[in-house]
Formats: sequence, structure tokens, C-alpha cells
Amino acid sequence: MSQLGPGPKNLITDVAGLKVGQAHDERARTGVTVILPDDRTVCACDVRGGAPGTRETDALAPENLVDEVDAVVLSGGSVYGLAAADAVTAQLGAAGRGYGLRTGPGVPVSPVVPAAILYDLANGGDKAWGEAPPYRELAVAALAAASDRFALGTAGAGYGAMSGRLKGGIGSASVVGEEGFTAGAIVAVNSFGSAVAPGGRTFWAAPFEIGAEFGGLGAAGLKAAPDDWGLAKGPPGGRENTTLACVAVDAALTPAEAKRLAIMAQDGLARALRPAHSPFDGDVVFALATARKALPETRQRSLARLGALAADALSRAVARAVYEAAPWPGTDALCWRDLA
Amino acid sequence: MSQLGPGPKNLITDVAGLKVGQAHDERARTGVTVILPDDRTVCACDVRGGAPGTRETDALAPENLVDEVDAVVLSGGSVYGLAAADAVTAQLGAAGRGYGLRTGPGVPVSPVVPAAILYDLANGGDKAWGEAPPYRELAVAALAAASDRFALGTAGAGYGAMSGRLKGGIGSASVVGEEGFTAGAIVAVNSFGSAVAPGGRTFWAAPFEIGAEFGGLGAAGLKAAPDDWGLAKGPPGGRENTTLACVAVDAALTPAEAKRLAIMAQDGLARALRPAHSPFDGDVVFALATARKALPETRQRSLARLGALAADALSRAVARAVYEAAPWPGTDALCWRDLA
Repeated sequence: MSQLGPGPKNLITDVAGLKVGQAHDERARTGVTVILPDDRTVCACDVRGGAPGTRETDALAPENLVDEVDAVVLSGGSVYGLAAADAVTAQLGAAGRGYGLRTGPGVPVSPVVPAAILYDLANGGDKAWGEAPPYRELAVAALAAASDRFALGTAGAGYGAMSGRLKGGIGSASVVGEEGFTAGAIVAVNSFGSAVAPGGRTFWAAPFEIGAEFGGLGAAGLKAAPDDWGLAKGPPGGRENTTLACVAVDAALTPAEAKRLAIMAQDGLARALRPAHSPFDGDVVFALATARKALPETRQRSLARLGALAADALSRAVARAVYEAAPWPGTDALCWRDLA
Repeated sequence: MSQLGPGPKNLITDVAGLKVGQAHDERARTGVTVILPDDRTVCACDVRGGAPGTRETDALAPENLVDEVDAVVLSGGSVYGLAAADAVTAQLGAAGRGYGLRTGPGVPVSPVVPAAILYDLANGGDKAWGEAPPYRELAVAALAAASDRFALGTAGAGYGAMSGRLKGGIGSASVVGEEGFTAGAIVAVNSFGSAVAPGGRTFWAAPFEIGAEFGGLGAAGLKAAPDDWGLAKGPPGGRENTTLACVAVDAALTPAEAKRLAIMAQDGLARALRPAHSPFDGDVVFALATARKALPETRQRSLARLGALAADALSRAVARAVYEAAPWPGTDALCWRDLA
């Protein structure tokens, strides 16, 4: 088996046709991440956490009308963060981009902007925003920053996040597979569960690490006794979670195939976090297919390959989020780098 | 954190109120496993594979009428194996056990017997059964054998199974958690993906192993390059899969809570098999709650603990299935024990 590796940036933006923009509010300790495809793009969504907060996800079911989206928004701010998608919808619509149910003078198009949020309301930031939460402004800033480069760690939707008892954040990774397709993942890790095995600092994602992208420690430290959750969140704080992910491939997929991609990618969360998908997580995985290349005739087998690549990339992205995370300015929030 | 361990048998039957019966047909290379609760028992089901074969699973949705089941059937035989549930339904109904929509003389009760099947039709066994597949007879024999002890490896619904390119089979494991609840799992492993990491014989479940229940090799061998699926099934054979699982706890759960248990337990498949949940797998997890003990007031947190215990137990059960598997008599089917 040949040695394959990440794309040139080891970011989801290695998948052709995607940009990512981020913004955060240091004082409020929260932020927004926008995944912006160059064109309308097939998208699916798979929700597995017990406490999700989402918008425009029902529209994505394969049996429903809308097949393509204009952007995907990941946001802090819990229920307030869903407003980030308002700003993205309005901006894209004003630019004439969106789904045209009926086109003509005076009839705006309908940009489809699914969004999901994580809970960072109790992280000590200043949330006294009254009737003016900052998420619309953060989304405008994130859109303006859209690029093929973006910051990992304490940034964007992961700015306010904690992964278990460690500082969480934004992670991303990419891989070019044997068939020449590129798969990538971006994730805002605010998990109930721990990204490292109990009693040490080995990432659960270690078996999938490429090079030393999150420390290169190997997998020998992976060991967990029953009921030992290591650095998972304990009370209080056990209910303040959610890991938000988006995976992408440059293959052309149907909406139903994109759903299978999202389902397989959830396994990447399962492998990188323990526990995952708890009643207190709102874990959501979006899947985008930017359709730069057709699938070969062994279509379902290629889809299985893409799903496995996306799952591994998502596991790696989770570890990179925690590996890259830094404390909020002026705080001593526990980071992976602080572990012995 | 105290060192917790398996129940006395390290089988799902350590969960109070459960028996398991199995039977197989050596010539046809197929078999049936019946999980038989002592009483009608809350059950949920979570389907994540792309090619499932199931029966009576829609009835189990939390919003639907039926909350409890009388048995759960796992069977080989693909679509033919669903008939195994016929025999169990008829036997239990004749014995007066089942859901009474209307009770009275001449009105049989309705036993609810969800079932799921795996594909073992092309494993070289004699499947020339014409109009008389053996699954009803196998189910009768399995019911008659119901006990708190049962065989692992090449047995029951796992008799005809292959896990990737290795002989698969039936696995089981149990654990007693900190809160005193017992969780257990049983699984028929006929996976597309591999239960061992590429290039060696380390089980993906190694971090969760208790003692040397599947060889005690440790986790240092866990490493996988992108697109390297190791001993996963290659063509031909890539479409002949499905891993069927049932987890159980002795706690009293609502049907919706049992569904969350099944969802979290799927992560045990994700961690123990790579890839999992592919388009070619029909992966199904049932969850039973035998209600011997009430959940404490921190109900959702205890549920998260049970889900994590069930996920780990299911990972261990997958490894034990492959670890215990032996070749069919007179064949040299590749087994884990043959790996260097």
C-alpha cells in the first residue's frame, strides 16, 4: 500500500472549491466559522448527539427538495449563535447567490445556509449582550475573511470551546487518497468526552496521525479502564458541549451518497473522543461534495473509501484542534501542551 | 479511579434477566442466535449500515406504540434468515407470551421479536435449500438451547461469518460499572472492515481490553495509513457483510433512553472495526434494558455512563469474536490465531 498523505495545506481547503472564514470575540470568548464553497454544493447532515442545535438541516434530507447549499456555518453561542447564519444568508442573497425557487425582478434568491451551534455560554466570557448577541457581526467578519488559509486551535467557532477539561478549538486535516480524490475535515471541538486517553496525553486519534501533525507520540499510551473517562468534563460543566464538524470531498456525490459520507465520518468522532455522542453532546457532521471529479464505476466502493478517508481526517482534525489550542489571553485554561 | 471489570461470565448474560441460545448448520455454514429476556423488555434499535436487513425494527421507535420485546434474533442467511424470527414468534406466542393488543379466548398474543440478518450466502456452505431454508429449524434449536452460557467464535449467527478476510463469529463481553450497573454486549461480526490494524494482529479494540480477554497485546501496534484497510474484505466479497449487535443493561430505561444507549454503542463498532458503517455493511445495534435497577437522579449522566460502558463492551465483544473464531471443519479459513 503506497504512503499517502495530507494535501499541501493539511486543511479542508485542500478540497478544491472551498474557502473558510473565521472570526471571534475575545471579550465574549466565542466565535464563528463559515465554510464557503465557490459554487452551490451538494451537502448532507448527520446528527448523532443528544443535544443538537441546528438550522436548515431538515432541508438536506436526500428525499427533500434542496440538494445544494451556499455555505455551512459553525458557531459558538448556543441558541444565539444560530443568528450567524442570518448574516451569511442575507449577504449571499444580496449578492444574488442562492436557490432560485422563482427568479425575476424583485424576487430574492434563497441561499441555503445550514448551521449548527455549540455551547460556550458559561466559559467565563462576557455574555451580557442583552438583545444584541454578536453572532451576525461575527459572521460578517468571518465571511470577509474567507480564504484557503485559516487558524487552528483557539479560533472561530472553537474560540470559546473546551474539549473535556482541556482547551478545545478548531481543527482541520486533509488527505489525498489512492484514487486521487482529496478528503478534508474541519471541526470545532467542544466535547463532553476527552480527546486523550486517561492518565497521559496520547490522543485517541494517534493511530491515524500522519507525520507529527499532533505531536507524533504513537499509540502505545492508548488504554482506558471501564468508566475511566480521564479528562472528560465532570460536573459542573458536563452539559456544556457539542462537537461540530464538516467533511468534504472533491468527488461528485448525490445527496444520499453525501449522507453516507457524513455517517461514516461520525466514526471519526467516535474514534477521537471518548465518550462521544452522549446525551450532552450535540454532535453534528455536515458533508460537502464539491464535484470536481466523477466517481469511478465502482461507485459504492469508492464512496466507502471516501467515507473512510473522511473519518480518519476528522479524527486527525479533532486531535489537531486540541493540540493547537492556546489559553484565552490572560487566562490559564488547561491546554494539551500543559500535560506532562 | 477504581479498577472495574467484567461480570462473572464476561458475557451479555451477566446482565440479569437475559439468556442466549444458539444453533448452527455445519453443512450450510450458517446459524442463528436468539437473545431471550426473562420478561418483556424495553428495546431500541439503531441502524447505521448501508445495507441492512431487519424485521420489527420500526415498531421500536420511541414514538411508536410498542415499548418492549420478547426476544431479539440475529441470523445468518441474509433475507432468508429473517424467517428465524417466525419460529421464535410462533413458539413464544403459543406459550402465551407477547404483547396483548386484545386479550381473550381465541385471540393469540403478539410476541414482538425484532431481527436482523447478515450475509453468509457465498461462504462456500451448501445453500441449495430451495424452498426450505433452515432458519426456522435453527431458531427452534436456538430457543431450546437458551442458557446463561453460550459459545463464542464460530457459533450461532456468527457461524458463517467473516470479519474482513479473517474468520468472524460471535463475541460477547460484560462489565460492571462504578454505579453498580452491569452492561453487556453480544455481536455477530461479519464486517467489511478489519478488526485488526494493518500489518499486524493488534485488535482495534486493544485500548479497551480487560486482562488478556483477546490476547493482551496492548495498543502499540495501532497504526493505519490512509486508504490502508489491512485485512478488510477486498473484491470479490466486499459486498458480503454486516455486523449485528445487541447491548444490554440491567438499568430501567425508557425506549428513548434505550435508543441513546444504542447510538452510543455504535461507537463501539466504529472503534473496533475499520472501516465501519460502509455502504456494504448492514450494521445494526439493538439495546435492551432489563430494568432490575432504577437509574439515579442524575439520570442523563448515568445514561451517558451506561452508553460508554456499552460501547466499550461492544468493542471488546468484536475483538473476542475474531479472537475465538475457528475454521469451519475441514477448511482452512484464515483465523486471527494464524496471524504471525
